Amino acid sequence: MSLTDIKKSIRNIPDYPKPGVQFKDITTAMKNPQVFKEIIDMMTEHFRMEKIDYVVGIDARGFIFGAALAYKLGCGFVPVRKPGKLPADTISEEYALEYGTDKLEIHKDALKNGDRVIIVDDLVAIGGTAEAAAKLVKRLGADIVSFAFVVELIALKGRDKLASLADVYSLIKF
Amino acid sequence: MSLTDIKKSIRNIPDYPKPGVQFKDITTAMKNPQVFKEIIDMMTEHFRMEKIDYVVGIDARGFIFGAALAYKLGCGFVPVRKPGKLPADTISEEYALEYGTDKLEIHKDALKNGDRVIIVDDLVAIGGTAEAAAKLVKRLGADIVSFAFVVELIALKGRDKLASLADVYSLIKF
Repeated sequence: MSLTDIKKSIRNIPDYPKPGVQFKDITTAMKNPQVFKEIIDMMTEHFRMEKIDYVVGIDARGFIFGAALAYKLGCGFVPVRKPGKLPADTISEEYALEYGTDKLEIHKDALKNGDRVIIVDDLVAIGGTAEAAAKLVKRLGADIVSFAFVVELIALKGRDKLASLADVYSLIKF
Repeated sequence: MSLTDIKKSIRNIPDYPKPGVQFKDITTAMKNPQVFKEIIDMMTEHFRMEKIDYVVGIDARGFIFGAALAYKLGCGFVPVRKPGKLPADTISEEYALEYGTDKLEIHKDALKNGDRVIIVDDLVAIGGTAEAAAKLVKRLGADIVSFAFVVELIALKGRDKLASLADVYSLIKF
């Protein structure tokens, strides 16, 4: 299984969610057992020599790759969620959408000073969501070893936005 | 690590989301690397002798346990999602909430006749969400080998509602 095979397994949905956008549908990749396994194994291999305490997964597709990665790395999983989804005390960060803003939350006691974490999402576009997740992680005192994405949309330059916060790792580039 | 250790790792949040409810916060379980690993390993062991094609995970906490289980079982992962989250053609099922209704969706081409699946969520209460997910899976012609939950709230009798559709497996009972 090569990166080209993984790339081919991602379905393109033209004009979704609006005309002109080529949406990368990653559900076809996670449905394929060999592809899903290879994605997780390649990400694990990339971080194998780091001492990672927690994988922080972003609601909701980041949960899918993040949780499998946490399992394989043998570390804990911490969710960053949309507002109102976490039951204990939280802190929140706002981030810009094309129109308006949205928020992400993390449990106040989810991370502590010096914890070493990876922030995982399925895809990075302009990087606004990942940046908000990173701010939450840093406010709790944890160290971000890296961002990790299955897919990076290069033209949208999310990497440039995130590079000042931590390393940026992605498996597949479009 | 015993089931008692796993049970102890689940945090109780009194009066959430409303007075009188004891909310089972499973984020403290998934954050603990040993507990998270043990949950996935015990679920894997339970289904090891079955031939499972896909783990169907329910949006969003079902993604966390479902994806790690799919990885460990070596099968594919198929998400069942809240409305408007899946980019290709979907079918949907309505289910009752305490006030009003909600919907779940699955990609039309996510499963096919004869596929053997497990439906995974973090917790079963009255079983409405899992029942809707099961209806979606059956409409696509797939066979449900079992429902699998980390936590079962026995008093709410979700098991009785689901038992006519498939086996019901849960790790921890409250």
